[in-house]
Amino acid sequence: MTHSHRRDTLSDRIAAADLDALLVTDLINVRYLSGFTGSNAALLVFADHRPAVLATDGRYRTQAGAQAPDLEVSIARAVARHLGARAVGDGIRRLGFESHVVTVDAHDALAAEVEPGATLVRAPGTVEALREIKDAGEVAALRRACMAADAALHDLVDGGKLRAGRTERAVARDLEALLVDHGAIGPSFETIVAAGPHSAIPHHRPTDAVLRTGDFVKIDFGALVDGYHSDMTRTFVLGAAADWQRDLYALVAAAQQAGLDALAPGAALADIDAAARTLIADAGHGERYPHGLGHGVGLQIHEAPGINASAAGRLQAGSAVTVEPGVYLPDRGGVRIEDTVIVEHSGQTPEVLTRFPKELAIVEET
Amino acid sequence: MTHSHRRDTLSDRIAAADLDALLVTDLINVRYLSGFTGSNAALLVFADHRPAVLATDGRYRTQAGAQAPDLEVSIARAVARHLGARAVGDGIRRLGFESHVVTVDAHDALAAEVEPGATLVRAPGTVEALREIKDAGEVAALRRACMAADAALHDLVDGGKLRAGRTERAVARDLEALLVDHGAIGPSFETIVAAGPHSAIPHHRPTDAVLRTGDFVKIDFGALVDGYHSDMTRTFVLGAAADWQRDLYALVAAAQQAGLDALAPGAALADIDAAARTLIADAGHGERYPHGLGHGVGLQIHEAPGINASAAGRLQAGSAVTVEPGVYLPDRGGVRIEDTVIVEHSGQTPEVLTRFPKELAIVEET
Repeated sequence: MTHSHRRDTLSDRIAAADLDALLVTDLINVRYLSGFTGSNAALLVFADHRPAVLATDGRYRTQAGAQAPDLEVSIARAVARHLGARAVGDGIRRLGFESHVVTVDAHDALAAEVEPGATLVRAPGTVEALREIKDAGEVAALRRACMAADAALHDLVDGGKLRAGRTERAVARDLEALLVDHGAIGPSFETIVAAGPHSAIPHHRPTDAVLRTGDFVKIDFGALVDGYHSDMTRTFVLGAAADWQRDLYALVAAAQQAGLDALAPGAALADIDAAARTLIADAGHGERYPHGLGHGVGLQIHEAPGINASAAGRLQAGSAVTVEPGVYLPDRGGVRIEDTVIVEHSGQTPEVLTRFPKELAIVEET
Repeated sequence: MTHSHRRDTLSDRIAAADLDALLVTDLINVRYLSGFTGSNAALLVFADHRPAVLATDGRYRTQAGAQAPDLEVSIARAVARHLGARAVGDGIRRLGFESHVVTVDAHDALAAEVEPGATLVRAPGTVEALREIKDAGEVAALRRACMAADAALHDLVDGGKLRAGRTERAVARDLEALLVDHGAIGPSFETIVAAGPHSAIPHHRPTDAVLRTGDFVKIDFGALVDGYHSDMTRTFVLGAAADWQRDLYALVAAAQQAGLDALAPGAALADIDAAARTLIADAGHGERYPHGLGHGVGLQIHEAPGINASAAGRLQAGSAVTVEPGVYLPDRGGVRIEDTVIVEHSGQTPEVLTRFPKELAIVEET
């Protein structure tokens, strides 16, 4: 029912774009619109609300029937070309395709199948625009994913597993196992555990480096639950915090709060980015914050909208985004603080789904 | 040194294709040629062996310097367009691009940057063709990945964790944890544990279904080690095997051995597929084997060459492939047996990297 409702909304968008049908080839978009999760699939959605057609290959015949019982399933290996030919046979004249996903070679092959019977029209981001606004089921899944991440991080810290003497890799492994214990199918991306100087690398892969007393330990991770991704970063100090660490942490925390406070529906994305960035730049660290403030999150760990200085659009109520400023001092250490947040309607405070405390946590020796 | 050797080989291929340079935008290909593993990168490789240029964004400045110390690193957000402009500035006239990877929209943006100063030329699969032949370091990594998978599956079975009463999900979780215990960074793809009727679904995601005595349990999984993916399937029976199960297993085992025996360098890929498929078709189960015999494996879980009925090329010595026939009887159960194999030079037996026994294993009650 959820999926058919999404397809109906999409049909209206297709009609509004003056297309007869849209060939959906992005697998995440296919999943969003059909429930089908196989690794080879395409979906043909019509402007006039005719029943959509799902194509997949023989490996997935049973699975497609189970996951998308309300759809006609058509079996083929080259799913996009197959549905292109089907569209022409069904009288489609203007066929939209996902030009942000379809490769140059795949477009050549598709054009050979449908032209001149129909015209292929670039329709980038059509489904992604729908996905930007989360429905109730999606918010619930994101909430479960964030709760699993919160619980795992609590277990890690309370269980004494975040301490000097352990390696980044061991901490990351334990955290990922705890995510599964709390109901996640796995991490939502490769867990970042970055200690000491490594914390100054924004995207660091865990190594066998050993955590030491006095280190910043930056942990950026998430849980994957029912296809939805949580995303959270917390930065700890082991043993005792130096003054520069407290100052740096306070700066990033203030910037993160400023970012959260700026999450009003209708706000320009670039302005939201600036709300946090200004604080960091004013403190003289603008050069040490080399990434955007945040990004949409849902069926993908990174999706629309991007919140950064060059973003063009506006924030929409019902979107799910991260807010994650950071400052990274080379060879010393860095701090990032990140939450996953649901943007509410005007006048309402955004719902922060990641609840793990954000005060600077000094993890005592055990 | 490995990476510069690969780039030199590529430069010769670029020259042979009558191009001045190749813009590499596939991230796996960038990694293969540079060692850099960040999530936003492109690489410009020249036909005349001039030093290549790696582009990435500010988040990865430190990491790029560490992972690719022998390369010029250029910082930009839109890495492909940035290197396109760089190529034109460097006098490149015929710039190859990965038309099997670059989307229609990305091509539009790239063309706006480089034309008319240079011509964009489709160059699909150029780096993938190099990757098809594994070098010694790659074979060693694949061997480590396969050993980790073997060891994990032994631990699972010997530890009594594969037994009636447990859920598919619990078994999959334990197996994935064991992979990590044996040195993997994680599974090489989402582990398949499919019990009873679910074993008839070629690609089944583990559910809370409970394993029962008499079930086939099909386990398809792998380990990710140093970027390389192992891939192995074993099918067990719990408690006691019925005659139909023994017959089905024997058929698939014979087909798998026929596939292994056909792995001669120079053999047509379609003929290798047929060597196994004929046995299954002759037994009347052709319709119940709805997938190809195997695929290349390396930095990706699926890469060149594909071994299936419609494959056009020939097998090459030094390639790493899977051999994985299966027969799936709807609502009853299915069997798949799969190994990861290195194709040796003519006259030598292929090296089967996955060593877990392939006799029908009846897991006794514990």
